[in-house]
Amino acid sequence: MTTVGFIGLGLMGKPLVTRLLAAQQRLAVFNRSPGAAEELGELGAVICQDSKDLAERSDIVITMLPDSPDVKNVILGRHGVSSGIRKGGIVIDCSTISPLVEKGIAEQLNALGIEMLDAPVSGGTTGAEAGTLTFMVGGGRDAYEKCLPLLKTMGKNIFYMGANGMGSFTKLCNQLAVALNLLGTCEALLLASKAGLDPQKTIEVLATGAASSWQLVNLGPKMLQRDFKPGFKLEHLRKDLRLITEACEELNLPTMGTGLMHELLKATANQGLGQKSTPALILTLEQLANHEVHIRK
Amino acid sequence: MTTVGFIGLGLMGKPLVTRLLAAQQRLAVFNRSPGAAEELGELGAVICQDSKDLAERSDIVITMLPDSPDVKNVILGRHGVSSGIRKGGIVIDCSTISPLVEKGIAEQLNALGIEMLDAPVSGGTTGAEAGTLTFMVGGGRDAYEKCLPLLKTMGKNIFYMGANGMGSFTKLCNQLAVALNLLGTCEALLLASKAGLDPQKTIEVLATGAASSWQLVNLGPKMLQRDFKPGFKLEHLRKDLRLITEACEELNLPTMGTGLMHELLKATANQGLGQKSTPALILTLEQLANHEVHIRK
Repeated sequence: MTTVGFIGLGLMGKPLVTRLLAAQQRLAVFNRSPGAAEELGELGAVICQDSKDLAERSDIVITMLPDSPDVKNVILGRHGVSSGIRKGGIVIDCSTISPLVEKGIAEQLNALGIEMLDAPVSGGTTGAEAGTLTFMVGGGRDAYEKCLPLLKTMGKNIFYMGANGMGSFTKLCNQLAVALNLLGTCEALLLASKAGLDPQKTIEVLATGAASSWQLVNLGPKMLQRDFKPGFKLEHLRKDLRLITEACEELNLPTMGTGLMHELLKATANQGLGQKSTPALILTLEQLANHEVHIRK
Repeated sequence: MTTVGFIGLGLMGKPLVTRLLAAQQRLAVFNRSPGAAEELGELGAVICQDSKDLAERSDIVITMLPDSPDVKNVILGRHGVSSGIRKGGIVIDCSTISPLVEKGIAEQLNALGIEMLDAPVSGGTTGAEAGTLTFMVGGGRDAYEKCLPLLKTMGKNIFYMGANGMGSFTKLCNQLAVALNLLGTCEALLLASKAGLDPQKTIEVLATGAASSWQLVNLGPKMLQRDFKPGFKLEHLRKDLRLITEACEELNLPTMGTGLMHELLKATANQGLGQKSTPALILTLEQLANHEVHIRK
């Protein structure tokens, strides 16, 4: 039986490892801060010293980390995955990071005889727990086919998008649309409230037609209920917008809407909202409007 | 039996009158250019000389016109509806115009003993033909109740939103969200294409989760197929964005995303795209990117 190593046991990593253990997958785990690893050790995972130690025990290594430098360091750094994994092993990075960094890491691993997939996810912590995540995968088709059963244990919709980096580019397209639909939701609710409409009823009406979006239907009500518990945090959306604007700079692609959202997300950070979930963008826009969106009784 | 007068027999008015005639509604019609009226005359509508003539024959008058000055003129101008309609009559304006103009017209009509509803629609020509339009209604609750059976003959989802102008404000909120979701769709597809992804597959992936919107799912494929047949025209969306920015100016409400979209829609007009349907916004953004979104075979 293959052993899967999992590095990064945060909000996303931990529920995924729990799912894999429940599916009888043999698992090695490593996390920078040891608390989460110990819990999963009690459920049957082997706790490792470092990334190299983990890679030596694993056929496939999954990473789920915050940002590009973390992934680079964990895979290619001292005592990293690349120093321990055997030839023919596969690394799957499920982090949302720069597509160009993913491509660069893949090239270095390929030179060592190791396969690499970038496979970022969407669907959040609840999706990770329920096994309903979407995986957007880039890399060699063979490596993808080998990992498909494993990915299907963790998620529901698994999409093969092309060569290394293409999974990450797909995730950036996803986050771009998320960001602009979120802005549309905020501005529509502010106009509704300022005009004297019932914002809750406005959501109901807009949801029936061409103005509808996942953001409006799912996050609009949270804005009205002042429910900003994380969820997907504003600081993470900000990081994604940074990755998108960096990629668009590289591609000479002007994306004005995305640029505007990137600036607004900097403002949310200045207002101390980074740890709140994305519907809290409304708080920044309310401050500019000197008007608080209200719910009619 | 009540007689309904209908003024404005364009892309929306004509199919609505056809529906009403099919439901055995007694109808008087008037249109500035006479062609459409003659066709409907053959189906049983009484063709009128002018708005006053029509109003004299009608218990309820419906207007469906391009912009605020048209509605003002047809209702309050010389030989207008207000000079012909009896006390106790009701005017329903289904145009998308300024909420403040709607409110002003209502006040003038009320002073003459005439009721007024603003009842703009969403759902387009196909919705008008199929009877699936959404109506967003503002005005007196009594007048609304009296007109509800008539509105239900023309549409599917009828929402009472509050006093005069509130139907129009709801429509502006709707168009605001439409505009930003459209921009999100365009920028996401451009990034996908420029990065080397299959844009069609990117739509499929994004439609499964938090990035999904009506605009992405319904208009994204039209962008890829180069299907810009009107539809809902860019020049009409531009008019709606002008109405929104005017209303937001009046309300001291900063709406940066809306402002950006208003500017981009001016650019579409300069490029001669006003008569094309809204997915043609992608053509303007492609020009800025010097890159055409492609479909992979």
